[in-house]
Amino acid sequence: MPETNPRILLARRPQGAPVPEDFRLEEAPMPVPADGQVLVRHRFLSLDPYQRGRMDDARSYAKPVELGGVMECQAVGQVAASRDARFKEGDWVLGGFGWQTFSVRPAKALIAIDPAEAPPSTALGVLGMPGLTAWVGLADIGQPKAGEMLVVSAASGAVGQVAGQLGKIAGARVVGIAGGAAKCAFVKDQLGFDAAVDHRAALDPQLDAACPDGVDVYWENVGGAVQAAVFPRFNNFGRMVMCGMIAQYNTSTGADAAGAPPGPNLGPVVRKRLRIQGFIVGDTGWSRYAAFRAEMLGHITAGKLRWREDVVHGLAQAPAAFIGLLEGRNFGKLVIALD
Amino acid sequence: MPETNPRILLARRPQGAPVPEDFRLEEAPMPVPADGQVLVRHRFLSLDPYQRGRMDDARSYAKPVELGGVMECQAVGQVAASRDARFKEGDWVLGGFGWQTFSVRPAKALIAIDPAEAPPSTALGVLGMPGLTAWVGLADIGQPKAGEMLVVSAASGAVGQVAGQLGKIAGARVVGIAGGAAKCAFVKDQLGFDAAVDHRAALDPQLDAACPDGVDVYWENVGGAVQAAVFPRFNNFGRMVMCGMIAQYNTSTGADAAGAPPGPNLGPVVRKRLRIQGFIVGDTGWSRYAAFRAEMLGHITAGKLRWREDVVHGLAQAPAAFIGLLEGRNFGKLVIALD
Repeated sequence: MPETNPRILLARRPQGAPVPEDFRLEEAPMPVPADGQVLVRHRFLSLDPYQRGRMDDARSYAKPVELGGVMECQAVGQVAASRDARFKEGDWVLGGFGWQTFSVRPAKALIAIDPAEAPPSTALGVLGMPGLTAWVGLADIGQPKAGEMLVVSAASGAVGQVAGQLGKIAGARVVGIAGGAAKCAFVKDQLGFDAAVDHRAALDPQLDAACPDGVDVYWENVGGAVQAAVFPRFNNFGRMVMCGMIAQYNTSTGADAAGAPPGPNLGPVVRKRLRIQGFIVGDTGWSRYAAFRAEMLGHITAGKLRWREDVVHGLAQAPAAFIGLLEGRNFGKLVIALD
Repeated sequence: MPETNPRILLARRPQGAPVPEDFRLEEAPMPVPADGQVLVRHRFLSLDPYQRGRMDDARSYAKPVELGGVMECQAVGQVAASRDARFKEGDWVLGGFGWQTFSVRPAKALIAIDPAEAPPSTALGVLGMPGLTAWVGLADIGQPKAGEMLVVSAASGAVGQVAGQLGKIAGARVVGIAGGAAKCAFVKDQLGFDAAVDHRAALDPQLDAACPDGVDVYWENVGGAVQAAVFPRFNNFGRMVMCGMIAQYNTSTGADAAGAPPGPNLGPVVRKRLRIQGFIVGDTGWSRYAAFRAEMLGHITAGKLRWREDVVHGLAQAPAAFIGLLEGRNFGKLVIALD
């Protein structure tokens, strides 16, 4: 057992895009579990775009990380020492452990992971928060039907890859928007989307070709130019699942500040009877987790659901990996492996 | 019986705001009913903002009026001659009769009106399409709950006055936005809204005072500066009922043209889990008309629902009245009385 707990703190609040100096690696004392608590050694940390919002001191749906506090994330790990009968050494668990190497948590705050069902890191991706996000957003808002056109932005990312595949399973035609030839080839050839659109090239001609009959459901992960290109293509009764707008997460004063770029004129919302709706997976998702997991495991067993992880090794790499995530440089669900 | 049927045609498609020269009054031959048909003498024509869209040759949810065709509207009238057993002379009926003085229609296309239940002109307002619009939009999208804050734009208009009063009946606090002191006094003192905001004065200080705890439901009739002032005030889980955006109906190329002004940045839709949804009353409204009418008559009998009509006399006044409607110069539900 090491003597210290390496962890990464929020050193200062970013001005626009985070830079390495906004983070600080420190060697904290190893935490010690009390009765009813468990010491967890983290194996995979989940880096996700929402964590950018936690770095700002702005009103949001969750409290910001405090200055000097440990960066937030979910992680999976193994029990290193247990003072609760529910867990024994070596058990795999999921929790909100943060960007660090060890955590002490009450046993009741941990979720057990069965590594025989799926690789433990999937509890951070296809079977975890991002997968649940895709599942909830499609069930509650997107509701793609057979023959409808679903367009997914950030299609090779943690949420997008699941949203698109669930759309295919529902019988929709699915177009993925991603950055660069490799990601486009992945969503089309590996995930089975009907077409891919590269947002680094001109969007309109590609969307004209991929969606000649318009768009019924748009899964919004990005905002910006992609949103502007897709929005006019909605068919009547289209649904826009507002999951995120990562393109503007690095604006210095938050997504809804006065300086945020304008959005689409909402006139077509009336004429076309559109529904634009936002959601946060934490509102209702975890209470529906069992149904989600059962359904997803069924799809995996049937060979209908694939996933791709972007695994970066070493806690010290987390800030650079996170900065890259916000710039779209990850390829698949980004996790930090702590070996 | 007169020998001709005065009617108003679409003489040319407006460039921006309609002008009198876009309309033409003509004396058409009196139509003659065949077997199974009824001749109706119109008593009240309904002028409504949606008719502006019908004047453009643009893709919309309904076909445009043809050049040289009769302007569309609903109207109530009395049977002048019947060749169907279902109707006799003097009966009151509702139909899509257009901006004219007489119509011949199949008897099966007419809806009977009982003048003993309510004045016949209410079939064009509180008990007609505008009232049904308010009722459907609140039931399906707005869903105001007791204690919530409902803000209604164009609050003294045909739809707004009903939407606000139904909000009060549901237990919500209701703020109406209207143009000028007289309309503001009307919605507050006559309709019982909790507060009124005059959009001809600075909006933000008035909204600060009227909605100190934010907005849960916004009934959107207007767009433009009013939308921009209300949108940032949404509370979590707010609903924006997209009924219309009259402020831009007179843009020369339609509501969703490239030249339309931008809308709000949609970042807050995610963070606040907002729902922005458009609807058209014709989609599901008329199949629910009986339930609507029964409920509304109950409210009227209970003294909980008032209405105000802006009655303009004479067919020849219809173009000017309609131009004024698009500029907010009407005060209440605009009808043309044909004496």
